[in-house]
Amino acid sequence: MIFKTPTTYHMTSGASEGFTVLNAFDGALMAAGIGNTNLVKMSSICPPHTREVSFVTLPHGALVPVAYASITCDKPGQVIAAGVAIAFPEDEDHAGLIMEYSAQDTRELVEAKVRKMAEEGMKMRGKKIKQIKSVAVEHLVSQCGAAFASVVLWD
Amino acid sequence: MIFKTPTTYHMTSGASEGFTVLNAFDGALMAAGIGNTNLVKMSSICPPHTREVSFVTLPHGALVPVAYASITCDKPGQVIAAGVAIAFPEDEDHAGLIMEYSAQDTRELVEAKVRKMAEEGMKMRGKKIKQIKSVAVEHLVSQCGAAFASVVLWD
Amino acid sequence: MIFKTPTTYHMTSGASEGFTVLNAFDGALMAAGIGNTNLVKMSSICPPHTREVSFVTLPHGALVPVAYASITCDKPGQVIAAGVAIAFPEDEDHAGLIMEYSAQDTRELVEAKVRKMAEEGMKMRGKKIKQIKSVAVEHLVSQCGAAFASVVLWD
Repeated sequence: MIFKTPTTYHMTSGASEGFTVLNAFDGALMAAGIGNTNLVKMSSICPPHTREVSFVTLPHGALVPVAYASITCDKPGQVIAAGVAIAFPEDEDHAGLIMEYSAQDTRELVEAKVRKMAEEGMKMRGKKIKQIKSVAVEHLVSQCGAAFASVVLWD
Repeated sequence: MIFKTPTTYHMTSGASEGFTVLNAFDGALMAAGIGNTNLVKMSSICPPHTREVSFVTLPHGALVPVAYASITCDKPGQVIAAGVAIAFPEDEDHAGLIMEYSAQDTRELVEAKVRKMAEEGMKMRGKKIKQIKSVAVEHLVSQCGAAFASVVLWD
Repeated sequence: MIFKTPTTYHMTSGASEGFTVLNAFDGALMAAGIGNTNLVKMSSICPPHTREVSFVTLPHGALVPVAYASITCDKPGQVIAAGVAIAFPEDEDHAGLIMEYSAQDTRELVEAKVRKMAEEGMKMRGKKIKQIKSVAVEHLVSQCGAAFASVVLWD
């Protein structure tokens, strides 16, 4: 094993305006409580026997594996949203599946879509679903905005 | 060193249909045999003295470094393909070079192109090539499809 | 902690022509002195108490965390540029913020913009800035070119 497999997960989301789209993205990370870390994007599995934590203390500058959806937009008045969902199988030794989705759409629609994606992905594995968890956030763009939703994996 | 340097590599590819492009991508990962892991995308070197393995058992949810090409498409009837190639130098203490390519094109053309890319990249290093290995996959889109080819690095 | 937190940083940039945009990107990495490594892209923090190094010896094929901006272009005669900046706060226990920017524009404009982005990002944190460091590179495209600027984190 090259990297240690994570043992906890944390679902979080945030949105922000910013000077540029990257600043808005950075602001959205801060709103989500993970703004001073180095996110390493990965695809998109919740390891079996991983425990949910409602809060995670990440050292400044830590390298943090994360599955996320994000969207940025500089069209004033546009609604944007990002969401993530995890489908957990009844079989507890099998991984959970994380799905990510973002669009110029409402939180309600984005969250419903990403939950359906997680459901379909678990069906594809031929596994019965025990539970689907999700988080999503919506943002009304003023000048330049970002919406971000994620599953952070940690130890 | 922050991360351990990998000691083995595994070439694999897969294709799939799916409910959304992300579900199709997820299905392609499963078809490639690495569907229940957390892929961490990296650019694109095969460490020297790395050994090829024809099969790799990755724990569910493991963080896995991988170089990959992928393409998704929701145009029924379109052919898509993804390929990767590794150029190995005669000098065995020098890294191998991985290249990735995908297009709305046939497997044959994509594989030929990505092999040429690896060849050119090794030329750029002024190194004589010992061998080029490649893998590629083609998919005919029905509703929403993905093609994926990769070099997985592992220990 | 899943990954070790880096203790040094190195700012570097490079540009290149290439057979394809990916070959040009690969050439730009070599011009920057980090061409035979596996870059793992991350967002974008310089951990507190990290020390700058002017040179870093990375083993071939090592997995290297890096924040970077890059741009590729196959329009002959086009100028492209990429830059990164780090804003360091007066509070030395607080992380530095890395920003990345690239455009079909001159080095001067890209570097000014990315410095401003880092400044705005530190303002958003309500922190006084001690210093901003930046690096940027410009490239005049002949056939197919790439410009790349990065902050490499290492131990």
